[in-house]
Amino acid sequence: MKKYAEMTREELAVLKEELDRQYEEIKAKGLSLDMSRGKPSEEQLDISMAMLDVLHSNFDAKCETGVDCRNYGVIDGIPEAKRLLGAMSEVDPDNIIIYGNSSLNVMFDSIARSMTHGVMGHTPWCKLDKVKFLCPVPGYDRHFKITEFFGIEMINVPMRPDGPDMDMVEELVSTDEAIKGIWCVPKYSNPQGYTYSRKTVERFARLKPAAPDFRIYWDNAYSIHHLYNDNLDFLVEILGECEKAGNPDLVYKFTSTSKVSFPGSGIAAVAASQANLDDFRSYMRIQTIGHDKLNQLRHVRFFKDLDGLHAHMKKHADIIRPKFEMVLEVLDRELGDLEIGTWTRPHGGYFISFDSLDGCAKRIVALAKEAGVVMTDAGATYPYGKDPHDSNIRIAPTYPTLEELKEAVKVFVLCVKKASAEKLLNEE
Amino acid sequence: MKKYAEMTREELAVLKEELDRQYEEIKAKGLSLDMSRGKPSEEQLDISMAMLDVLHSNFDAKCETGVDCRNYGVIDGIPEAKRLLGAMSEVDPDNIIIYGNSSLNVMFDSIARSMTHGVMGHTPWCKLDKVKFLCPVPGYDRHFKITEFFGIEMINVPMRPDGPDMDMVEELVSTDEAIKGIWCVPKYSNPQGYTYSRKTVERFARLKPAAPDFRIYWDNAYSIHHLYNDNLDFLVEILGECEKAGNPDLVYKFTSTSKVSFPGSGIAAVAASQANLDDFRSYMRIQTIGHDKLNQLRHVRFFKDLDGLHAHMKKHADIIRPKFEMVLEVLDRELGDLEIGTWTRPHGGYFISFDSLDGCAKRIVALAKEAGVVMTDAGATYPYGKDPHDSNIRIAPTYPTLEELKEAVKVFVLCVKKASAEKLLNEE
Repeated sequence: MKKYAEMTREELAVLKEELDRQYEEIKAKGLSLDMSRGKPSEEQLDISMAMLDVLHSNFDAKCETGVDCRNYGVIDGIPEAKRLLGAMSEVDPDNIIIYGNSSLNVMFDSIARSMTHGVMGHTPWCKLDKVKFLCPVPGYDRHFKITEFFGIEMINVPMRPDGPDMDMVEELVSTDEAIKGIWCVPKYSNPQGYTYSRKTVERFARLKPAAPDFRIYWDNAYSIHHLYNDNLDFLVEILGECEKAGNPDLVYKFTSTSKVSFPGSGIAAVAASQANLDDFRSYMRIQTIGHDKLNQLRHVRFFKDLDGLHAHMKKHADIIRPKFEMVLEVLDRELGDLEIGTWTRPHGGYFISFDSLDGCAKRIVALAKEAGVVMTDAGATYPYGKDPHDSNIRIAPTYPTLEELKEAVKVFVLCVKKASAEKLLNEE
Repeated sequence: MKKYAEMTREELAVLKEELDRQYEEIKAKGLSLDMSRGKPSEEQLDISMAMLDVLHSNFDAKCETGVDCRNYGVIDGIPEAKRLLGAMSEVDPDNIIIYGNSSLNVMFDSIARSMTHGVMGHTPWCKLDKVKFLCPVPGYDRHFKITEFFGIEMINVPMRPDGPDMDMVEELVSTDEAIKGIWCVPKYSNPQGYTYSRKTVERFARLKPAAPDFRIYWDNAYSIHHLYNDNLDFLVEILGECEKAGNPDLVYKFTSTSKVSFPGSGIAAVAASQANLDDFRSYMRIQTIGHDKLNQLRHVRFFKDLDGLHAHMKKHADIIRPKFEMVLEVLDRELGDLEIGTWTRPHGGYFISFDSLDGCAKRIVALAKEAGVVMTDAGATYPYGKDPHDSNIRIAPTYPTLEELKEAVKVFVLCVKKASAEKLLNEE
């Protein structure tokens, strides 16, 4: 098929007429499909069901230190849960605090704590005139919403296949004391599925921030969420790297089992230096009497160890790999030669990132919605919901069934074609 | 036995010698007992074990609106959980938000939110020179620690058997705009076991605060925690009372199942006006993707309804009633005539409040500790840990077995006698 940009105005007009016809046809089907959120499918949830049998009316409620997990006590996690999440995070269990059901909540609370109490004795951010965060873009909308909510100014940093533009990060962080943090999804990033290179991680660990209370918010949400057994991404462990670089307190590393066991009923953890963890604990000790230890025990007794986690993640991969591959196959086949879009080919995580021609993303998402296919809002992957090129769209293939997804992608590529043709026609 | 105050110096000296002897004897036993925390006993935890069987690998994970509780979604609680906690809170389910495992966490977050974002559009507290809270005393140490942590100035308000001194509350709240809240445990109060009278609740609902963002923090932690079937306290429902009084937004009402099912693995809720709940939700929506809906479902399917909750609480009562009665019996028998202490006789809740002669509480707790019995720190029931009379001690009878408790109370009354004799001897 001919590239759209090489078509004459007449050819484009004919094409658009045909696309309009196809669009009306597909709209008439009255579809109701959702490619918007990074949610596991029902089939994926089913593979964790046996976890609900592990604790029952006759189970032994004592954790390995003899504490009855049914009662109050143990503020920062039972030892075996620290070991499990430590293994998942590739850090010593002593560097782990176990939280409740949501790592997003831990990140939010970390910002809230920094606002009212400051980071490790430094001035509370609410007392400063200006606080800024770096935001690799496109990125995760829920991160950006947290910093926006606290009135923190967000600065876009372009993402590359090997991580954020580190020249820019180094320059900004070392010169501007108002910059207090950066949001990172370092492995199978949201939405591209990129994994930061060794060089990128090393440069992160060697940052020389102007602000002593600058922290890297390292959201390792997809650390074990591989799609392939033989094509895994590897991420250098940053806590150790920071220590080697003489910057032990530079990073907060977050993780959770939300997309391992059950979203909303998993366990979350933070890994950091002892000094940082003491800071976390000083807040936590006042905030709560402790998190849900029964759920910690449930996870530990079900997964047992890192091997157990990996074996489980393979089952997830077997379910979602065909979905990713099908989406990519359709994108390749339908859009491969047209030069009206580019997309990523992740080896793990939950998303494919699609970039349309500039100025087309909003239109594509609107067209898809009108045809019954919900996509993540265009712009959502940027701070303040503002994509300067109006080109990025996040595709989330996991939740629908393969059949539904086939229908949805068909609609999506049609909308891409239609919006692109419209744009080119309007330009000329 | 003769009242201590009526003894001659010689009689006191002889008495003290005998008490010293008894104390050394009891110390030699090397006891290790704990009457410090309001924790359920193992026997109490056992009665909830069947709750762990309710969700299993073949259970139906859909809540009544068809949402799969194993996945993301439903920010503020599944309808059936709102209904259950609504019934427990005596409010419409529409006035309920379901949270995670800890109501203390919800209270903390409410203060944190007020600090950074203000209450319903009012100035964030962190922008104000001074924020104050009223603290009925003695009260719950963890409440006071939250306000202390945020640098909020705490003002003591004396507790009476019918609630806080309302003349003082009305006077302060109506004249001082810096006063933004009051901590209340209105039913079976911590530590006295008092329940606010109808008149007290009505006066609360009719407060005319100088600060438009003043809120009553109504921690209804022991709403269904009766000790007796035939001697229950009744508390007027404050949300309805506030609405009647034209003050619908005046109160946040907190509750949880921590001491109904499993401490740390229960579910918490807040009840408030729609305007307040919208304020809570605006924060929550950014803070988390949602709380643990499986645990909500687990509670609903186990307890079913308010009758189920009440039936369950009767089992708790049957276990802890003999403990309360034994403690009271020993206090009556050993200290009844001596006029060296007074104590409360609660109909529910988790504590007995003991008041020694002025200046003796710290000494009593220290003596008990030396003899192997841990009590709540003297002073803990006051803001900043400062009991102006050094007289209040919180007794928590639920956690030890009846046998252990017998030993512990024996030690306690001996320490009260010894400290009192010491004080009277030193005074003369």
